[in-house]
Amino acid sequence: VKQVLGRFFEDFAPGEAIRHATPRTVTEGDASLYTALYGSRFAVQSSDAFAKAIGYPRSPLDDLLVFHTVFGKTVPDISLNAVANLGYADGRFLKAVYPGGTLSAVSEVIGLKESSNRQTGVVTVRTTGFDGAGDDGSDLLPLGARPQARPRGRGSAGACAGPAEGGRARGSGRGLPADRGRRLRLTLAGSPHRWGDYAPGERIDHVDGMTVEEAEHQLATRLYQNTARVHFDGHAAAGSRFGRRLIYGGHVISLARALSFNGLANAFHVAAINAGRHVAPLFAGDTVYAWSEIWTGRSCRGGRMSERCDAARRGEKPAVRRLSGTGTGDGYNPAVILDLDYWALIPR
Amino acid sequence: VKQVLGRFFEDFAPGEAIRHATPRTVTEGDASLYTALYGSRFAVQSSDAFAKAIGYPRSPLDDLLVFHTVFGKTVPDISLNAVANLGYADGRFLKAVYPGGTLSAVSEVIGLKESSNRQTGVVTVRTTGFDGAGDDGSDLLPLGARPQARPRGRGSAGACAGPAEGGRARGSGRGLPADRGRRLRLTLAGSPHRWGDYAPGERIDHVDGMTVEEAEHQLATRLYQNTARVHFDGHAAAGSRFGRRLIYGGHVISLARALSFNGLANAFHVAAINAGRHVAPLFAGDTVYAWSEIWTGRSCRGGRMSERCDAARRGEKPAVRRLSGTGTGDGYNPAVILDLDYWALIPR
Amino acid sequence: VKQVLGRFFEDFAPGEAIRHATPRTVTEGDASLYTALYGSRFAVQSSDAFAKAIGYPRSPLDDLLVFHTVFGKTVPDISLNAVANLGYADGRFLKAVYPGGTLSAVSEVIGLKESSNRQTGVVTVRTTGFDGAGDDGSDLLPLGARPQARPRGRGSAGACAGPAEGGRARGSGRGLPADRGRRLRLTLAGSPHRWGDYAPGERIDHVDGMTVEEAEHQLATRLYQNTARVHFDGHAAAGSRFGRRLIYGGHVISLARALSFNGLANAFHVAAINAGRHVAPLFAGDTVYAWSEIWTGRSCRGGRMSERCDAARRGEKPAVRRLSGTGTGDGYNPAVILDLDYWALIPR
Repeated sequence: VKQVLGRFFEDFAPGEAIRHATPRTVTEGDASLYTALYGSRFAVQSSDAFAKAIGYPRSPLDDLLVFHTVFGKTVPDISLNAVANLGYADGRFLKAVYPGGTLSAVSEVIGLKESSNRQTGVVTVRTTGFDGAGDDGSDLLPLGARPQARPRGRGSAGACAGPAEGGRARGSGRGLPADRGRRLRLTLAGSPHRWGDYAPGERIDHVDGMTVEEAEHQLATRLYQNTARVHFDGHAAAGSRFGRRLIYGGHVISLARALSFNGLANAFHVAAINAGRHVAPLFAGDTVYAWSEIWTGRSCRGGRMSERCDAARRGEKPAVRRLSGTGTGDGYNPAVILDLDYWALIPR
Repeated sequence: VKQVLGRFFEDFAPGEAIRHATPRTVTEGDASLYTALYGSRFAVQSSDAFAKAIGYPRSPLDDLLVFHTVFGKTVPDISLNAVANLGYADGRFLKAVYPGGTLSAVSEVIGLKESSNRQTGVVTVRTTGFDGAGDDGSDLLPLGARPQARPRGRGSAGACAGPAEGGRARGSGRGLPADRGRRLRLTLAGSPHRWGDYAPGERIDHVDGMTVEEAEHQLATRLYQNTARVHFDGHAAAGSRFGRRLIYGGHVISLARALSFNGLANAFHVAAINAGRHVAPLFAGDTVYAWSEIWTGRSCRGGRMSERCDAARRGEKPAVRRLSGTGTGDGYNPAVILDLDYWALIPR
Repeated sequence: VKQVLGRFFEDFAPGEAIRHATPRTVTEGDASLYTALYGSRFAVQSSDAFAKAIGYPRSPLDDLLVFHTVFGKTVPDISLNAVANLGYADGRFLKAVYPGGTLSAVSEVIGLKESSNRQTGVVTVRTTGFDGAGDDGSDLLPLGARPQARPRGRGSAGACAGPAEGGRARGSGRGLPADRGRRLRLTLAGSPHRWGDYAPGERIDHVDGMTVEEAEHQLATRLYQNTARVHFDGHAAAGSRFGRRLIYGGHVISLARALSFNGLANAFHVAAINAGRHVAPLFAGDTVYAWSEIWTGRSCRGGRMSERCDAARRGEKPAVRRLSGTGTGDGYNPAVILDLDYWALIPR
């Protein structure tokens, strides 16, 4: 058989490492499409000049574009026959990726649990994305292991840094007094609110809504080279449980993240996806709204952002509610489709 | 409140200058998406080689892509709660923008007029787009104020120049006799018609029609980071006056400009939007057609194209008629959706 | 008349050469859109690192993106008034094209045959696409005639090369033993199957299906600057024979090629379109499936890939069946929409 037909539960072995196909060079073209698909407005990812002013070599790619590209590679080997993608845990974004980087992925099978009905089983994998060629194995370093840390040029004793305080910008701001440069950057980033302005328990409704079209989620999911047929084959979907194409769960995460700009404009980088669950499916024609709840606040002193426990982070818990369609999540409001616990970097 | 909820009439002060958020680096990826969204075929914006042959360093971005990107930045500060975008006046395109440029925008409130019913008011703003970093204020020069003028390498005493006559190309054409080079360029541009071939009062039906899909205008409007909710939130729109999502007016301008290629293929640059009015809304499923009327013809001698009153221009007045839906414009044919008075550069 | 209204049968002269308008610089942005439109996963076109490892300077653009761009240029001069695009014959891909290249096209009228009913006629043209500026005629070389051949760095006596065996990679693989480098590349390409694993007569069902949306084929066809109105004008189409917009035939070819990855992952380059026929039209909402039949197998020894008869090729005959809509092809299963005989390069 020359086709990839996907694995079933019994085809996975504990500890097995799977090298996924199709290394992918990500470019400015992918960044433009990502903007067109979600309307994301975070200044660091939108402007080379802004990114440089706070110590990046140029605008990094959106963290979730990197996530989806890496995730997409795992589909033929891991989830082609999956009944559902149950969730995410302990995801870390270790390194900024720039246009021109080539992403590849390896997964390790870390858990196999048969269901009580013996009809299905749960496979747990740890996937590592690499910013490296992957063509000969020699330069496959995990994202984050590269010597140049994300935002560069930061003193080891300095406070944690965000767009308003980092690197070259601090104290100089290209010849501007530090305060003026800082205020200006907050203006350009779209919000005066910083780390200290958010309190645990605070809830932010992100106001705006986005209706999703079939063409949009198909373009996005193909961009990530995720070709799971449930997202594309309307003919087969007509006879399925839902009667129509399912939207890739990552599309929902990106929509929620883009919507969260309105209230969290300075949360400029996703540092971790601690836990995530697709509570109910999203279908074309549905409108997505998002809100966030500040979950925990962790500060830091010293160190570089690439060492994750040292960065100034805000835990956030944006959930997404769907206003059309029927929710199926147990214990959730029936309109909720996504429950995501993530860390974002926000300037102090 | 951490969300941007938009201003109302009483929140604007005369003379107030508003610096808009999210500087945006525009790239080749944006140019490709612009082509995919409208099918524009102007040779200068399509081919680096063609652009170089007439004196540009490379293909500039479509003028309207620059316009939409700048306009999009103003939305959160200016028009989020606007009942309607009434129109445009005295817009000038002062400088070509190339991939890699970073656009930012500042608006000044230049008019505030309360309506007689005291329920609404008209706010007039002058928006300036900049091709500069905008991160510290030091290199914010208006588009056009840069020392390097649009098409370079043109003698100060030369006639006004278009794609067939400008710069290095004139008299040399890479070793070709001037006439042959000129004819060849007109062939490659798609039309033999030049400045002298168009007469005031002439009317051109641009023949082709383009049906618009929800996914298309949403992709476009998000690409411009214009997140006005009327364009995206189908759930909220269902309960609105129109019962559905409104298409961003700039999408109509770009459709009309792309359709105008068939009859105005050599009108290679938009130099000014003198006046514009969105006469009626456009909705997904509608088909857009365009025609142009030659309004005035202005010639010129000497000078550079970046000094706007010196360039060879054709005034044009393309209106756009919509063949489905119901028009609401007073005094217009009910199918008309856009009335735009603009100047385009065309070779003599 | 300033508009291009298209030619009719009697407007073509035998032997006439037509230089088509709008040279087009193809970029990374176009490559990203191509991926988003079809979900193609071939490693050579996806990863600069992978492409370099087998001797390319970087990832080439997808062969069919080049084909569609060249084809699109011919539409205003050749097929604007065509009743149907009957088919293709003897197409050759002579040269890899990279981002930054500028494509232009020339067609020669090589056949004119009036139909017996004297209402229509068949025009046969030979179109040549060029990777050259086209602005002065001096550097218009046919794709393939450039001195640098596709995959570089190959010894003249070597075997024909594919991704696992070519150029620098052979025998070295960046310091890896040849066998390990070869195995690794097959893993990254997504399939262990090579030239010797396919036998004439073998039939491969490519499993996956793709439902097409109006927005998708319109974005694609505009990206190729193919503005034939049958693809875009829903208002006019409502009164036509089919009652709706027709999807550009090339969109079907690209869908079939992308679907063929599942079973032909190592068929990394299209070398020729020997013959092709659009048996029936495709409409939005239809779902496309593909299968391939191995037609002939040709091996080779020595020479460069740019000399077409020397390359290791597999003839393939993927047909595409449509599961909704009504087929009209005589002699074909009514669901068949495309019958394409092409050569793809596959490593030995």
